[in-house]
Amino acid sequence: MPKTSVKGKQMPPSPIRKLVPFAESAKKRGVHIYHLNIGQPDIETPQVMLDAIHNYPDKVVEYSHSAGIETYRKKLTKYYNKYKISLDFSEIIVTTGGSEAIEIAMMSCLDPGDEIIIPEPFYANYNGFSTQANVKVVPIRSTIEEGFALPPVNEFEKLITPATKAIMICNPSNPTGYLYTRDELEQLRKLVLKHDLWLFSDEVYREFCYDNKEYHSVMHLEGIEQNVVMLDSISKRYSACGARIGAIISRNKDLMAVALKFAQARLSPPTFGQVAGEAGIDTPDEYFVNVKEEYVRRRNFVVESLNKMDGVFCPKPSGAFYCIARLPIDNSDKFCQWLLESFSHENETVMLAPATGFYSKPELGLDEVRIAYVLNMDSLSKAMQCLELALLQYPGKKESAMETSAIRSEKQS
Amino acid sequence: MPKTSVKGKQMPPSPIRKLVPFAESAKKRGVHIYHLNIGQPDIETPQVMLDAIHNYPDKVVEYSHSAGIETYRKKLTKYYNKYKISLDFSEIIVTTGGSEAIEIAMMSCLDPGDEIIIPEPFYANYNGFSTQANVKVVPIRSTIEEGFALPPVNEFEKLITPATKAIMICNPSNPTGYLYTRDELEQLRKLVLKHDLWLFSDEVYREFCYDNKEYHSVMHLEGIEQNVVMLDSISKRYSACGARIGAIISRNKDLMAVALKFAQARLSPPTFGQVAGEAGIDTPDEYFVNVKEEYVRRRNFVVESLNKMDGVFCPKPSGAFYCIARLPIDNSDKFCQWLLESFSHENETVMLAPATGFYSKPELGLDEVRIAYVLNMDSLSKAMQCLELALLQYPGKKESAMETSAIRSEKQS
Repeated sequence: MPKTSVKGKQMPPSPIRKLVPFAESAKKRGVHIYHLNIGQPDIETPQVMLDAIHNYPDKVVEYSHSAGIETYRKKLTKYYNKYKISLDFSEIIVTTGGSEAIEIAMMSCLDPGDEIIIPEPFYANYNGFSTQANVKVVPIRSTIEEGFALPPVNEFEKLITPATKAIMICNPSNPTGYLYTRDELEQLRKLVLKHDLWLFSDEVYREFCYDNKEYHSVMHLEGIEQNVVMLDSISKRYSACGARIGAIISRNKDLMAVALKFAQARLSPPTFGQVAGEAGIDTPDEYFVNVKEEYVRRRNFVVESLNKMDGVFCPKPSGAFYCIARLPIDNSDKFCQWLLESFSHENETVMLAPATGFYSKPELGLDEVRIAYVLNMDSLSKAMQCLELALLQYPGKKESAMETSAIRSEKQS
Repeated sequence: MPKTSVKGKQMPPSPIRKLVPFAESAKKRGVHIYHLNIGQPDIETPQVMLDAIHNYPDKVVEYSHSAGIETYRKKLTKYYNKYKISLDFSEIIVTTGGSEAIEIAMMSCLDPGDEIIIPEPFYANYNGFSTQANVKVVPIRSTIEEGFALPPVNEFEKLITPATKAIMICNPSNPTGYLYTRDELEQLRKLVLKHDLWLFSDEVYREFCYDNKEYHSVMHLEGIEQNVVMLDSISKRYSACGARIGAIISRNKDLMAVALKFAQARLSPPTFGQVAGEAGIDTPDEYFVNVKEEYVRRRNFVVESLNKMDGVFCPKPSGAFYCIARLPIDNSDKFCQWLLESFSHENETVMLAPATGFYSKPELGLDEVRIAYVLNMDSLSKAMQCLELALLQYPGKKESAMETSAIRSEKQS
C-alpha cells in the first residue's frame, strides 16, 4: 500500500472541526448542541443576494475570468471606496473564499523554508496553509492579560531572520476579537518598511467593529503600498460562508501577476457565489446597522456572563464575533470533548473551540477556549447556562490563578 | 520592494488563458472570435440544476461539511453505481472543481521532490499543481502518430526512480481525446502493483465516449484498490464549469483521512454548486444521449475538415471534446497569437490552444494545437474556414513532413 505524504501527516486537523464526530454522536443521542465553536453566523444572508441567485439568468453555468467576473471586480472597488481604500479593479483577484486568498498569497510570496511571523493565538488554518506551502510559521505571543494587543515591535525584531519574508495579522482578529489601533498599525508599517517584508492582513471582519472604534486597514498605510497584501472574504460580511468568495488585494503589480498564474491553474472562482457577491454590494446600510447592534448585544451578554462565572476571565473584544475566555480547566481539548461526550443539561450542551488549536505550541491555550457569539440571544443564554453548570461538574476543574480575578476587576472596571 | 517567490516565477502561465489579452484586444477591434481554445462548452446546463438554484431554499448560505453535503455525497454513490463503481459515501470528498481534487491528491500523496509520471501531452494545469506542491513531473511521451495511445510499460519502467510516487492519467484524455482500452489499464495496473505507486486518474470526461467504445475506470481495476485515486468534476458532465464542483475518490482510508485535513483547512466546497450538483444527478438520460450525438457530429466534422486541409493531420479521438492537430507551422504559440493579432476573415478569427503548453519540454508541440469542439456546427464550420485560410496566409508556414500525408491516408482509411 502506498504511503501518504509527510506533508499530509504534518497537516493539522482543524481544531474547529475535529470535534465534529463527537458532536455527531451527541446529536444521535438526541442532545441539542449550541454551536459556539465555529464562525457560522445565524444572521440571514441579505435578500438582494438570495434574489440574485433565484434569478440567475444564464443557461450555461460558465467559467468566469480567472481573476473573477469583471463587473464584480469593478463593483468591489466601490465597496472598498467606502472604507477609504482606493483601488483599480486590476488590484483585485477574486478567490474561492478567504482561504484561497491566503493560499495564493503564501505561494506567491513565500518559498519552502521561508518564515512568516504571526501574532498568536491566530486563526488555526494559517497553520494548515503554511504546512501546504512548506512555510514556517514563527509565532509571536499576544496575551489574554493584554487583551491580545499587538506585541511590542522589539519582540518582532527578535524573531526576524534572513528567512523571514512576511508578517501576517488578522484585523479585527479571529480568534481574539482584537481590533488593532492606528498606532499599532503604524508600528507594523515601520517594521515592514525597515526589513522590506510582506505584510499580509486578513480583514474579513471589517464590518464588525464596535464601541465606535475605528477600523484601520493596512491599505491605508503610506509608503508600504508594495508590501501590503489584503486578504478578504464575503463569508462573514454577508453571512454567506457557503458562497466561497474572497479576494486577494494588492497594489504590487508583480505580485498580482504571479497570483494570477495560481488563479489560472484552478481556472476560476465559483460563478454562483460571484453573482451573489456582486449583488451583495447593494445590501442596504440598514442591514449592517442591525447586524452590528445584534452582535454588540450578544458580545456584551456573553462577555458579562463569562466574567461572572467562577474562575473565568474574558477580555472584552472590540471586533469580529469571537472572544477568548480563560476557564478553570486542565485541558481545553479534553473539556470541549467532555462537553459533547459526557455533559448535558436538560438534554442540551454547548460546543466550543479549544484555544490550543490557535497556538503553535501544545502547552499554550490549555485553559482557554474560543467562543463564537453567532447564535441568537435566547440560545446564547442557554449556552452560557450550560457552560456555567459544566464548569461546576467537570472532573478536570482547576482552581484558577489568583491573577485572574485581579485582572478581571481591572479590565471590567 | 519585497520579492515574489521562486515558486511564483516557476509557476507556468496557463497556455489556455495566456492568449486572453490578445483576444481581448481583437474583440475591442470588433473582431468576432470562435473560442476553440478552452473546454467551455456551449451546451446548456441541465434544467434540473438551474431549477435547484432558482429554488435555493435557505435563508443563510452556510458552510457545508468540509467533505461536502452528506446527501450529495450519498447521491453521488448512485451516480457512480451506473458506471459499475461501487462506493461508500465516505470514499468521496467533494472539492472545489476537479482542480482542487488534483491539488489535494498531490499534497496528500506526494512531498516536495517526489516524482509523478504523466503521459504527455497532458492537461497543462497538471504542471501548475505540481509546481504548487514542489512535485516533479516526469513526462512520458505519447505521439500523434500513435493517436496518443498509452506508451509501452517498459518505457514507464525506465523512468521509475526511488522518488517516483505516482502515475497520473486522464481518461478520456484532455487534451488528446484518447480513450484508454481495458488492456492499457491492465498494463498500468500491473505496473502500479509492482512498484506500489499511487495511480491518479482524472476521469471528468467519462460521459463523452464515442463509437460504442467502452469507458473503463481505474476504479474497476482489481488488486490496486489502495493505490487508486479518481479525480472528478461536474464541469464537463453537466456543462457547469462555473459551479466549481469536483471530487476526490479513493478506497484508501488513510488517504481519505489525510485529504480531509486539507479539505478542512479550506472549510468547505461551494454550497450553491453542491446544490446544483446534487440536482444534476437526476438529469434525464436523454440529455446525455443528445449531448453525445452533438459532440460526435462536431468531432466528425472538425476532424474531417482538419484532415482535408493541406499539410494538416489530426487523429480521430474516441472521447472528451478535444483533438490535437498537427499543422504546417513553425511555432504554435506564434501562430495562435498571430490568429488573434494579425488575421481575420470577414471580421472573424479563431482562437486555439498551442500544444506547447501540454508538453513539458519547450521543443515539443511546436507544430500542434489543441482544438476544443465546444461550439455549434455553424460556428465550427466558420472556425474551420478561418483556420484553413489562416494557414494559407500565415508567414511562418512550414512545408509539412511527407510523413504526415502517409500517416493520414493510413489513419483515415
